Amino acid sequence: MKTRRGSYPLLYPIPLCLLGAMVDGKPNYEAVGNIGMVSFNPNLLMVSSIKQHHTNKGINRHKVLSINYPTAEMVTETDYCGMISGEKSDKSRLFTNFYGVLENAPMIKECPVNLECKVIDTLSYGAYDVWIVEVVETYIDEELAQEPKKWPTINKVNPLVYSPAAEYYNLGTKIGDGYKEGKKITAQG
Amino acid sequence: MKTRRGSYPLLYPIPLCLLGAMVDGKPNYEAVGNIGMVSFNPNLLMVSSIKQHHTNKGINRHKVLSINYPTAEMVTETDYCGMISGEKSDKSRLFTNFYGVLENAPMIKECPVNLECKVIDTLSYGAYDVWIVEVVETYIDEELAQEPKKWPTINKVNPLVYSPAAEYYNLGTKIGDGYKEGKKITAQG
Repeated sequence: MKTRRGSYPLLYPIPLCLLGAMVDGKPNYEAVGNIGMVSFNPNLLMVSSIKQHHTNKGINRHKVLSINYPTAEMVTETDYCGMISGEKSDKSRLFTNFYGVLENAPMIKECPVNLECKVIDTLSYGAYDVWIVEVVETYIDEELAQEPKKWPTINKVNPLVYSPAAEYYNLGTKIGDGYKEGKKITAQG
Repeated sequence: MKTRRGSYPLLYPIPLCLLGAMVDGKPNYEAVGNIGMVSFNPNLLMVSSIKQHHTNKGINRHKVLSINYPTAEMVTETDYCGMISGEKSDKSRLFTNFYGVLENAPMIKECPVNLECKVIDTLSYGAYDVWIVEVVETYIDEELAQEPKKWPTINKVNPLVYSPAAEYYNLGTKIGDGYKEGKKITAQG
């Protein structure tokens, strides 16, 4: 009934961000699926990247980074940013770069949601730097700001959805509301 | 063009798991969106939960946990597992429980992918326990094991997709392959 497949860090779905850093004075972006929410108050996320990557150099130097969520339309640029090192390609040319309150956290205008973050802890596991980061400021597209909810509805953000089998998907349709769906069971006692 | 919204740990999309633990000798499951991939080799994930939650008691005692990915069809049960504490409700009755190689990591048969994990580090941020866990064994449904790829294709897993605005979505359609899409740009030089 179940098949064993050994040890592997499976995640369904994998969120995907373009991790921004200032490396040697130039904006650089790396496609990263190793990202997760850690806590509210403080508002923390975890993000990790292989130590030898170009991006790590900038993050470890300046202790700041940006998180940019690419849309499904940006699948080609995003995949490119996961394939090619910033040492070999100036990936900032693919996007319109902008800055917020931090000096060394370049962000991508074409991504509808951007986070400026400061590193509060740097952990090390295997070949990876693992950063615990505090969100300093969030930036959302003007048209998303017109939504009734404070935080943009995901179908307007239209994020890329990634899979352990290295496939990109887009978002489907809404199937329920949090803290409401479950009441069907509560009501049954 | 961009609106500032202050500090918040925004993630698009949010993955959702049913976090399994043995609490006071009984299987318990908590719906958790605070999960992310940390590293390959070692195969690590990060998962966090508010210290006072019932689940934390079992995880901190036994230093093991399970990660179970609910399907879109399981939205009602999943939401319930995020609303009601195991102190007040025996959530194990909602599912068929099974065990793997670890004694105190109950898993959910109805979830097509299950991970048994041991805690290798317990961090503390604000009101949260943050566990860095190593995947000991993965379990996948027999029919998923027939797929050509080693790791199940995400549309067969049919996971729930969650949003910062507390809305559940299902998965959309495939729009590209990793390490292939980006070659369109490489070819252009």
